[in-house]
Amino acid sequence: MICNKISSQKWDTKRQDKAERINSVQSIVKQKIIPTSDIVPALERLIKSGDRVVLEGNNQKQADFLARSLSKVSANSVNNLHMIMPTVSLPDHLDIFEKGIAKRLDFSFSGPQSLRISQLIEDGAIEIGDIHTYIELYSRLYMDLIPNVALIAAYSADKEGNLYTGPSTEDTPAIIEAAAFKNGIVIAQVNEIVEDTRDLKRVDIPGSWVDFVVQSDKPFYIEPLFTRDPRQIKPIHVLMGMMAIKGIYARHEVQTINHGIGFNTAAIELLLPTYGNELGLRGKICKHWALNPHPTLIPAIESGWVESVHSFGSELGMENYIAARPDIFFTGSDGSMRSNRAFCQMAGQYAVDMFIGATLQMDHEGNSSTVTRGRLSGFGGAPNMGSNPNGRRHTSKAWLDMINNQQGETISRGRKLVVQMVETFQSRNNPTFVNQLDAVKVAKDSNMPLPPVMIYGDDVTHLLTEEGIAYLYMAKSLEERKAMIAAMAGVTDIGMTADPKTVKRLRAEGKIVYPEDLGIDRNRANRSLLAAKSMAELVEWSGGLYNVPAKFRSW
Amino acid sequence: MICNKISSQKWDTKRQDKAERINSVQSIVKQKIIPTSDIVPALERLIKSGDRVVLEGNNQKQADFLARSLSKVSANSVNNLHMIMPTVSLPDHLDIFEKGIAKRLDFSFSGPQSLRISQLIEDGAIEIGDIHTYIELYSRLYMDLIPNVALIAAYSADKEGNLYTGPSTEDTPAIIEAAAFKNGIVIAQVNEIVEDTRDLKRVDIPGSWVDFVVQSDKPFYIEPLFTRDPRQIKPIHVLMGMMAIKGIYARHEVQTINHGIGFNTAAIELLLPTYGNELGLRGKICKHWALNPHPTLIPAIESGWVESVHSFGSELGMENYIAARPDIFFTGSDGSMRSNRAFCQMAGQYAVDMFIGATLQMDHEGNSSTVTRGRLSGFGGAPNMGSNPNGRRHTSKAWLDMINNQQGETISRGRKLVVQMVETFQSRNNPTFVNQLDAVKVAKDSNMPLPPVMIYGDDVTHLLTEEGIAYLYMAKSLEERKAMIAAMAGVTDIGMTADPKTVKRLRAEGKIVYPEDLGIDRNRANRSLLAAKSMAELVEWSGGLYNVPAKFRSW
Repeated sequence: MICNKISSQKWDTKRQDKAERINSVQSIVKQKIIPTSDIVPALERLIKSGDRVVLEGNNQKQADFLARSLSKVSANSVNNLHMIMPTVSLPDHLDIFEKGIAKRLDFSFSGPQSLRISQLIEDGAIEIGDIHTYIELYSRLYMDLIPNVALIAAYSADKEGNLYTGPSTEDTPAIIEAAAFKNGIVIAQVNEIVEDTRDLKRVDIPGSWVDFVVQSDKPFYIEPLFTRDPRQIKPIHVLMGMMAIKGIYARHEVQTINHGIGFNTAAIELLLPTYGNELGLRGKICKHWALNPHPTLIPAIESGWVESVHSFGSELGMENYIAARPDIFFTGSDGSMRSNRAFCQMAGQYAVDMFIGATLQMDHEGNSSTVTRGRLSGFGGAPNMGSNPNGRRHTSKAWLDMINNQQGETISRGRKLVVQMVETFQSRNNPTFVNQLDAVKVAKDSNMPLPPVMIYGDDVTHLLTEEGIAYLYMAKSLEERKAMIAAMAGVTDIGMTADPKTVKRLRAEGKIVYPEDLGIDRNRANRSLLAAKSMAELVEWSGGLYNVPAKFRSW
Repeated sequence: MICNKISSQKWDTKRQDKAERINSVQSIVKQKIIPTSDIVPALERLIKSGDRVVLEGNNQKQADFLARSLSKVSANSVNNLHMIMPTVSLPDHLDIFEKGIAKRLDFSFSGPQSLRISQLIEDGAIEIGDIHTYIELYSRLYMDLIPNVALIAAYSADKEGNLYTGPSTEDTPAIIEAAAFKNGIVIAQVNEIVEDTRDLKRVDIPGSWVDFVVQSDKPFYIEPLFTRDPRQIKPIHVLMGMMAIKGIYARHEVQTINHGIGFNTAAIELLLPTYGNELGLRGKICKHWALNPHPTLIPAIESGWVESVHSFGSELGMENYIAARPDIFFTGSDGSMRSNRAFCQMAGQYAVDMFIGATLQMDHEGNSSTVTRGRLSGFGGAPNMGSNPNGRRHTSKAWLDMINNQQGETISRGRKLVVQMVETFQSRNNPTFVNQLDAVKVAKDSNMPLPPVMIYGDDVTHLLTEEGIAYLYMAKSLEERKAMIAAMAGVTDIGMTADPKTVKRLRAEGKIVYPEDLGIDRNRANRSLLAAKSMAELVEWSGGLYNVPAKFRSW
């Protein structure tokens, strides 16, 4: 039965459309090169109203010149764009909406722009598609959010469009591929255009994937987002770090790991060479890392704790250190680092024993969110790494330790360790533990179908506060999980619901522990236990290779 | 406190080692080219005993010349290799172990070699690391299984090592990157070596990522693994397909999808243009696909059902059809397809509403496995796609339909639809539903810490058999789930445990349905409802573009 065949259908409309767009700028471009001063008229011809446009802007690398230029196009000729942006971090990113050039936004993380996003939603200037974890957003580029245009950033290009993305390769490959192989237009801003392919340090993206390159008016914006000054690590972080190392890392023999970016996980990194060595753990835990090149990891690397680090992106100031440590970091034939956000997120989800990070709020069931009052911040990679990959089939000591057939299933399986490490209060009057996440109200106010939860309670295997550790994976029911969370919630409202008898039982059963139970002397929990107490000491550890960014210099 | 610094440590041992290996073959190679006849001595110098070697072999594309050559190296000079192989499918893959060249194996899928793997384990000739889902295996290449050597396959290379991987790009990028950026050795077998970069159809892998290329003695092995002849689709498949379309796809408005590779899902593909049209569903369901280019999808594409298809790999015979349908498939600037197994698995996990596939065995709790008696087959991508990604944060009608706060959580969340579509018997005396999966015994016999389960019961949202559909996501407890499974298990032992009163209640509550409940006329469930009933009709639908592989030709 041959029926319903649409015989008149054209099957290469996108290819034709792409050819027309490219033709329309032939008076402006010289082969693949758009002159810097002509970028706005070029964008006005290459982008059509209603297009899906993916704009690179991740934690560190920003296609800022292209964002700025896009905000200057005429909203009369280009409007109703559907922007797909891993990170919304620059004012220009939202100017595009305010000026009526773009209408709809799908994103992963906002950060400094989170308050303004909320206001723009309220004003009706922006229509939110969804908030995603990074790798989920990249995934949709291949399914139902295939881009018409990709605007990306690289260090340098040759005249054929070959790109060097260097240490901050980040999400460029995942973004470009979706457009380049579906007849989308790929435009790369670069800091420099070189004469010949041989003048590129290396080729990260082949030229045939790139339609146009434009030299930006100034090098792309990059900031040392994950650098933590050891001076700001407090004794409470040291105490929590000691508990983490002894009560979690050592107990479960955690081999592969992703750390969050707070001062508490920075403390752990700086405790490995001191407290960790004292416990005889070197070579036994924390060997393989999915992590940006945190400067606070330098002492652990230099003391022989770290076998390998694969990175999402780079970190300003770490370039020379990384280049001098190719046994540890992923580096290219030119010696500089290669990062890859998609693959590192993939590894952070599927290949690590443990994710450890923090949150701003946690409810009684253990659900957490960084979306608080009026700030639609998104979550970046946390939902991906802070969740159990149900498809994982390889085992490890740590993963097997999590077995708990809660419903009485006859077949056991392990789990990834997901550790939430928080102080009970964010500031004096701002409890971390709340009866209801602000996210619930935000969802209602923004007409979102569900509250934006960062990590769900049943994915959290361990809760670590200054009070102690709750081994939530051992909970036999939601009720018991709630009791364990309350036991660690200090003097917050939720902490006050803890029933002393239940707490005693949980402690006796080893489901919660205090520092004393772990044999940790609170008196030792002070900054003298840190392998480096200042940026200067990190430089010393690095043998002068770490180049401290200006904002972190006190000298 | 500066302490424990290992001042004498060398940090570029891998780079040095790589340089030495490359030096050792300078008498053999001409720049990057290894002469075909010298591949064995070259491998003997480039690979060292104990190395981790990743050997490309995925569903379709096989680095078969390199596998064959590796099996010829002297086991005296090269031994104890740790092989990492996405797919173990050729006899040579296991000869390497039998000859004592390799010892340890990490893999994802075996298939025809599954019986021999089990025997080699028993004989002590092979030591199994873990069985993985594809994307999990790639992930570990960046963490704790970083390869020393990558042996991969491409269509063509130029003298600088630039590669054209073409329609079957598959997992090449994910594998090469891990070795290329960690000072591993990358060797590519190619069907041809061209003079100049401009003679390559396009560049898929930049030359600086590749250390050596060798022209294979014959083109790499490829087989049409996912081609299903419509002649073999039976009336029972048509009935099940009708139920799937009406009772699942339409009910939940499934937009984005991954199909398994059996005759039942092939039947669905061929029912969309007929039964689907009749129900007025065109443009309302199944718009975006994560799928290899199945020939049985041609009628749906030609009838305007499909907006886009992103593929893991290619399918022999589909080349011209794909090249003529760039609006649907991902194609490069040269017009040929670009597949990408890592990204397609990522999309199949995070971006689709639904996964639908089959299994060989399912137990009473809904756990399923294709590991049966003595066959350590592995699961390929099924565990990844057939599981809920807990990190997903975007919503869709289908995903939201799955909300069921089983434990009484206060915050709701959706789920991916995971549909198991099986006949109650695999063959007359071989029930699909079993009291215990064979995998449990296999695990015990092979000293595996856990049974190799393909998909866990609590990830399955729908069970579809010839009896009807069980909406498992509506189950309020493990007990209820078991009752729903029994209701669909026909006259198997598990089916016989179904209690008529419970079945009646489940039906009244809409938790299970029969074809009648869906308004499906069993009399219409025959082959005349298929849009194509033979390979010849698929060719006709394709306008002569589909080139039927020899083994499927009856003319």
